[in-house]
Amino acid sequence: MKKAGVAILGLGVVGGGTYQILTEKREFFKKTQGVDVTVECVLEKNVERAKQLGVEEAKIASSIEEVVVNPNVDIVVEVIGGTGVARTFVMKALMSGKTVVTSNKELFAKHWSELESAAKKMNVGLFFEASCVGGVPIIRTLQEGMQANKILSIKGIINGTTNYILTKMADEGWSYEEALKEAQRLGYAEFNPTADVEGFDATYKLSILSSLAFNKKICIENVYREGITGIDKEDIAYGKELGYTLKLLGIGKDTENGVEVRVHPTFVKNDNPLASVNDSFNAVHLVGDAVGEIMLYGRGAGALPTGSAIVSDVIFAAKHDEYFYAGFKNNITGNKETKFAKDFSSKYYIRLSVKDTAGVLSKISGMFSKHNVSISEVKQVSMGDGSAQIIIITHVCAESLVKKTLAKLDTLAEVFSVKGMVRIED
Amino acid sequence: MKKAGVAILGLGVVGGGTYQILTEKREFFKKTQGVDVTVECVLEKNVERAKQLGVEEAKIASSIEEVVVNPNVDIVVEVIGGTGVARTFVMKALMSGKTVVTSNKELFAKHWSELESAAKKMNVGLFFEASCVGGVPIIRTLQEGMQANKILSIKGIINGTTNYILTKMADEGWSYEEALKEAQRLGYAEFNPTADVEGFDATYKLSILSSLAFNKKICIENVYREGITGIDKEDIAYGKELGYTLKLLGIGKDTENGVEVRVHPTFVKNDNPLASVNDSFNAVHLVGDAVGEIMLYGRGAGALPTGSAIVSDVIFAAKHDEYFYAGFKNNITGNKETKFAKDFSSKYYIRLSVKDTAGVLSKISGMFSKHNVSISEVKQVSMGDGSAQIIIITHVCAESLVKKTLAKLDTLAEVFSVKGMVRIED
Repeated sequence: MKKAGVAILGLGVVGGGTYQILTEKREFFKKTQGVDVTVECVLEKNVERAKQLGVEEAKIASSIEEVVVNPNVDIVVEVIGGTGVARTFVMKALMSGKTVVTSNKELFAKHWSELESAAKKMNVGLFFEASCVGGVPIIRTLQEGMQANKILSIKGIINGTTNYILTKMADEGWSYEEALKEAQRLGYAEFNPTADVEGFDATYKLSILSSLAFNKKICIENVYREGITGIDKEDIAYGKELGYTLKLLGIGKDTENGVEVRVHPTFVKNDNPLASVNDSFNAVHLVGDAVGEIMLYGRGAGALPTGSAIVSDVIFAAKHDEYFYAGFKNNITGNKETKFAKDFSSKYYIRLSVKDTAGVLSKISGMFSKHNVSISEVKQVSMGDGSAQIIIITHVCAESLVKKTLAKLDTLAEVFSVKGMVRIED
Repeated sequence: MKKAGVAILGLGVVGGGTYQILTEKREFFKKTQGVDVTVECVLEKNVERAKQLGVEEAKIASSIEEVVVNPNVDIVVEVIGGTGVARTFVMKALMSGKTVVTSNKELFAKHWSELESAAKKMNVGLFFEASCVGGVPIIRTLQEGMQANKILSIKGIINGTTNYILTKMADEGWSYEEALKEAQRLGYAEFNPTADVEGFDATYKLSILSSLAFNKKICIENVYREGITGIDKEDIAYGKELGYTLKLLGIGKDTENGVEVRVHPTFVKNDNPLASVNDSFNAVHLVGDAVGEIMLYGRGAGALPTGSAIVSDVIFAAKHDEYFYAGFKNNITGNKETKFAKDFSSKYYIRLSVKDTAGVLSKISGMFSKHNVSISEVKQVSMGDGSAQIIIITHVCAESLVKKTLAKLDTLAEVFSVKGMVRIED
């Protein structure tokens, strides 16, 4: 029977879950997978935490050096996060000939080329299924299930925190602040929620997923990013009336005009399978030119779901001697060869606060028409205070034209303000 | 660059799609996958069909012998279907040292052990992603994405024909016969629809998927099977009113009482992600003890979706020299060691046609209670002709008790007939 020794760097939530699965299921893996995987050591500053999890004292390493010289360690699991020590430790592990399994999306999004070069040089494995969408095998699917396809688009709800917040705003009518507070109370959002609510976390994941989908390195600098902090519950409610659900989507498209990659709040039609992905669930919807639509759905975070992805990588590495790398056509150190779209097209939801008087709608719709933005639906709601809300849904048009239109509208005396602008994906 | 030569056995719908993808995308695969895959020959009785697809005459083989002695052929794709010549051809290919990729669920469900033994003996690959759920990488997910999990349940809409029929019955109020006719007109159902509508196709797939999920061979003989031909549109309509959608599900559960595997019409709650899988789409919902819920969704059939799965196997086989086999704990030739559940538990929807008179409901509910079947919801509809329909939803209880209850009810003078009995999965 094949054997593999594992070191776990970091025993936080995911590290703890990984330790638990690996130790409790050793016999199960021997039976079902034909491999004997043992945790040989852990690296965790908080020794008490390690002991609480049941790690023997002799297996608590005191430095990364101790880990990488340990001949019993074949696979190093990095679940520290961030790009500080995690980067140093991962590079040391790779350069010491250890296979690395990581859940670190930020590290991967920012330093993929460095890591992959080291892995190739040392002929070791580098696995990162847990970096995106927790326990859902989306990396495996992109690497080994979709090769026959030119992938046309990827659309994902790839951040559970913001999906929880948006679900609560829609279902309970809460404001953003109220929903955030509840998410923090439940441990779905951190005390400083910036990485989630401003879309950085989703940006890292979209960078990784779209790089794999489009076979070229998509750097985070190429991803347009907009978070959910500016979302008004009124827009969620108006959208609902029109048959849309608001989601923070990571969107990647490979079009004739180039690649477009963006993270922003998006209305999806209620019959889109992404619309019913609620709470902290995640989902990724792909369109391939051969397979058509496929969608993967599941838990994007948490000790055991993410631990499940890590352990699936560990078992894979333990069973097989061949390593797969991304092998982008374009040099993974950069994207000079990748053509990015300068503009993109979408449908738009626009909400204006206007003077409640005759002829306003005509003037406004005239402005849209002047900019070649075609309107598909309009709704006007009198507020009873001399103002009205005008909701406009456009046909597909270029974002640049919509922005020009909105800038012009803002100068009209009858328009008090542009209250909301949300892109729509059917 | 690695090279691989492919032979395609059978140029029907899926064979044609596979040929098209492999030939049109040769350069794409060289660039993105680093492999040069060429179609070296095809075996197809209908030479005209082969020529129409663009196959050069020199590449049209006239016998399986010609294919397996061809030194340029590394990978044999079998898309003939059935267990006649397909079985013979696949065995010849394997025993000649060729890797086999197949979409043949019936062959795999019935002769897996024979095929796998031959592949192991000859140290060649045996891939079958396309056998279940078309282009959705469910086999890959079970083999390489869920290893960390004891899989507790698998529930799938794994037959597109029946899902199309049930969707139309629900949305348009059509009868089974009307929906079947339309499905045949559109090419979703065959002239003889038995394999689909009686659940045989789903049984083959459930046998394969649950074998992988539970790490033990589940033979088709162990799968309880019930098709959709007896479905009354009234039951779909009553279920709808109560918040349920009717689906033909393949259900596998690994419980303390043993494994239960069954294919039958099932009501799922409308907020279950399976409820919104409509038309000819398929989906598989898994629960793992670590990962929790995950679901994969996509096209279960068709030239290009199934071709996509076949080609992903071909590319995988072309790129890698290691082969993965199922490696069940229990001998895959049988399941003597597998404990199967003798009975199972579920919630039930029951519809009775009864005499519309006072005291009937009390008598009927008394009969349920006498058999320890607890009722959660009752609805009585007077038909105005002296009869009434009584709809009963039970709490979770053993199927054996429900059957006993129904048998007793049938003997009551007040009960004209048991009109419908549908199992419910939340």
